Amino acid sequence: MTLSKKALVTGGAGFLGSHLCRRLLAEGYEVTALDNLFTGTKANIYDLMDDKRFSFVLHDVTQPFWGQFDEIYNLACPASPIHYQKNPVETMKSSVLGMMNMLDLALKTKARLLHTSTSEIYGDPLVHPQVESYWGNVNTIGIRSCYDEGKRCAETLCADYRREYGVDVRMVRIFNTYGPNMHPKDGRVISNFIMQALASRDITLFGDGKQTRSFQYCDDLIEAFMRYMAVSPKRIAEFFGGKPLSKVCPGSVPSSSKIVTPDVPVINTGNPGEYTIKQLAEETLRQIPASKSKIVFAPLPKDDPRRRKPDITLAKALLGWEPKVPLREGLAKTIEYFSKMSGRQSAQ
Amino acid sequence: MTLSKKALVTGGAGFLGSHLCRRLLAEGYEVTALDNLFTGTKANIYDLMDDKRFSFVLHDVTQPFWGQFDEIYNLACPASPIHYQKNPVETMKSSVLGMMNMLDLALKTKARLLHTSTSEIYGDPLVHPQVESYWGNVNTIGIRSCYDEGKRCAETLCADYRREYGVDVRMVRIFNTYGPNMHPKDGRVISNFIMQALASRDITLFGDGKQTRSFQYCDDLIEAFMRYMAVSPKRIAEFFGGKPLSKVCPGSVPSSSKIVTPDVPVINTGNPGEYTIKQLAEETLRQIPASKSKIVFAPLPKDDPRRRKPDITLAKALLGWEPKVPLREGLAKTIEYFSKMSGRQSAQ
Repeated sequence: MTLSKKALVTGGAGFLGSHLCRRLLAEGYEVTALDNLFTGTKANIYDLMDDKRFSFVLHDVTQPFWGQFDEIYNLACPASPIHYQKNPVETMKSSVLGMMNMLDLALKTKARLLHTSTSEIYGDPLVHPQVESYWGNVNTIGIRSCYDEGKRCAETLCADYRREYGVDVRMVRIFNTYGPNMHPKDGRVISNFIMQALASRDITLFGDGKQTRSFQYCDDLIEAFMRYMAVSPKRIAEFFGGKPLSKVCPGSVPSSSKIVTPDVPVINTGNPGEYTIKQLAEETLRQIPASKSKIVFAPLPKDDPRRRKPDITLAKALLGWEPKVPLREGLAKTIEYFSKMSGRQSAQ
Repeated sequence: MTLSKKALVTGGAGFLGSHLCRRLLAEGYEVTALDNLFTGTKANIYDLMDDKRFSFVLHDVTQPFWGQFDEIYNLACPASPIHYQKNPVETMKSSVLGMMNMLDLALKTKARLLHTSTSEIYGDPLVHPQVESYWGNVNTIGIRSCYDEGKRCAETLCADYRREYGVDVRMVRIFNTYGPNMHPKDGRVISNFIMQALASRDITLFGDGKQTRSFQYCDDLIEAFMRYMAVSPKRIAEFFGGKPLSKVCPGSVPSSSKIVTPDVPVINTGNPGEYTIKQLAEETLRQIPASKSKIVFAPLPKDDPRRRKPDITLAKALLGWEPKVPLREGLAKTIEYFSKMSGRQSAQ
C-alpha cells in the first residue's frame, strides 16, 4: 500500500478551495480543508464529506494551525469586494496573519506551499498585459486597499520566508476566475449577470461597459495549481533565476525568445482572452433565452480597475499550461449551477 | 495643578523617538517610551531617565501593549535597509502587527494616534515630486519589500480603523531625515559619509552619485508632529475631504490654488531642497577639513530609488509648517554629535 500525500487547503469550503479539494482527492491525496465559513459554505463540499480521506475543520486562518502536511494550498481570504469590504480589518488579517501562520506551518513541517495571490496586486495597471515583473499601481488608503495591500504583503512574506528560511513556496497571481460554487452574492460580474438574467432583473453595467476583463474557468486554474506543485524545487530554482531564460521547457514559447523571470517563484494564471463587460452580458443573455432582463448602466465604483489581462508566458513555459475552456462553455456550466441552485432555493 | 497629557512613543529609544520624547517632556507631557532596543539604544535617552514624568518600557510592539494614553506616536520599525533587511520577517511584523496593536490600543482608549509612514511607500516613484495622492511604484517581492510593503500595509490598517471604527489616526510620510542620535551604522548616506569622513576612510558614492535626495533635519520633523497632533479632529475632517480645497488656512499657499487632499489624513513631511549625493559628500568633507577621505564610486544596490522629493503643499496648508533648518546647519550639528560619539568610543 502506498501512503497518500497529505494536503491542507485553507479556504477549502470556498469557491476555488472546494474545486481544489475535489481534484486533490481524485488524485489520491488525503485532504484537510480549513474554512471559517465567512464566504465559504459546507454546501460546496457536501459531496466530499463521505470520503474518509477528507476532513473539514472549522478554523480561522488568522489563528495558528498545526498539523503534518506534504503540501499546503493557501486560498483563504474573501475575494470579492462586497465581502472583503464588509470587514476590511479582518480581510487584511486573513491575508497577512493567515499567510504568517501558513508559512510558519510550512517552515516547521517542511511542506511545499502554494500561495494564491491575485491580479489585484497590479491594481489599476499602467502596463498591459500584466507581466509578473510589473510592480503594480495600488492605492494604500482606499476602500479596496484592505484586499490589495493585504495580498501584496502576503507576497512579500512568501518571498522573505523563501529567501530567509528556504520555505518551498510558490505563488500564483489569479486573474478573474469563474465557475460553479461561486458565491451567488459574490457581487462580481459573472455571478451578478447570471443571477440577474435568471431572475429576469435588469443587468447592470458599470461605467460604459467597455472595460475589459479576462475570464478564467475554474478547472483551468486548478490544473495550473496541480502542475505547479508537481514541479521539482530544482527546476523552480533554475526557472526563477531573475535572469533571462534563453531556453525554456515544455514550451509553447519559441526557444528563441528570452523570458525575464522574477527571482521569486510567481506566475500569473488567467485567461488572456479579453471580453468587454458588455460582451459578457450579451453572451449571458444569449445562453438564457427565457430571460427578460434588459441591460442598464450605472456609475463606476471607486478604484475599479479599467482593464486587466494576464501575460501567461511564464506559466506556459514552466508548466506547459494554458487555459482550455472557452468562455461559452464555462459560462454554460456556471449557468447550469446557478439555475439548479436557484431552483433548490425556490423549492425550499 | 493641571494634569499632564499622557503620551506613548513606540520606538522611543530610536533616533526620531528619542527626539520626540524630549520634545514632549519639554511641552509638559508624561511620556512612556517603548522600544525593543533592536536599533534603538538607551544612550539616546540617558538624559531623560531622571525625569519622573518619563518611563522606558522594554517592549516589542509585535506584542500587544495596554495602558491609558491621550496620544500615541507610532514610530517603531527599523528604518535603514541594513537593519530592516537583517530580519525581513520581523521588520514586516513590527510594521503590521505593531500597527494593529497600536490601533487596537487607540480604539480601546480613544487615544489620538500619529503613525509615521515613509516616503518608501512611493517606492521608485514615477511622479516627481511626490504628492500624497500618488500611489507609488513598489516591488512586492524584492529585498526592500519587507519595509515598503509593511509600511504600505500599516497605512491601509490606519485608513480602515479610521473609516470603520472612527480612530483619530493621522499619518505622516517621512522623507529622508537626519540628525544627532542617528545610528552610526545606520548605513544611510548621511551617517555613512560623516563616519567615513571622520575616520578619513574613502566616501563611497553608489552609482554615479547624481541621484538626488531631500534631507530633513530631525527638529523640523518633530515640529510637524507636534503641530499635526494639535489640530482638532473637526479641522482634520474638513481638510481631508478627498476633494479640492478652495480655501486653506494658515496659508503659505495662495488662496486661489486648489489642493486635492486624500480622504484619509496623510501628509508628507520632508525637506523639498534637493541635493545630489555627490553634493552631500562634498559638503560633509568641507565641514570636516581634517578628513583625508577621498570620494570613490560603487555599483547601485538593488531596488535603490533614483530620485525622491516631497511635495509639502498639504503640510504647509494644514500646519503652516515648512522645514527651517538648512542642510549646512543640520549637518554641522550631526557632525558634532558623531565626533563626540567617536571620541567617547575611542576613549573607552
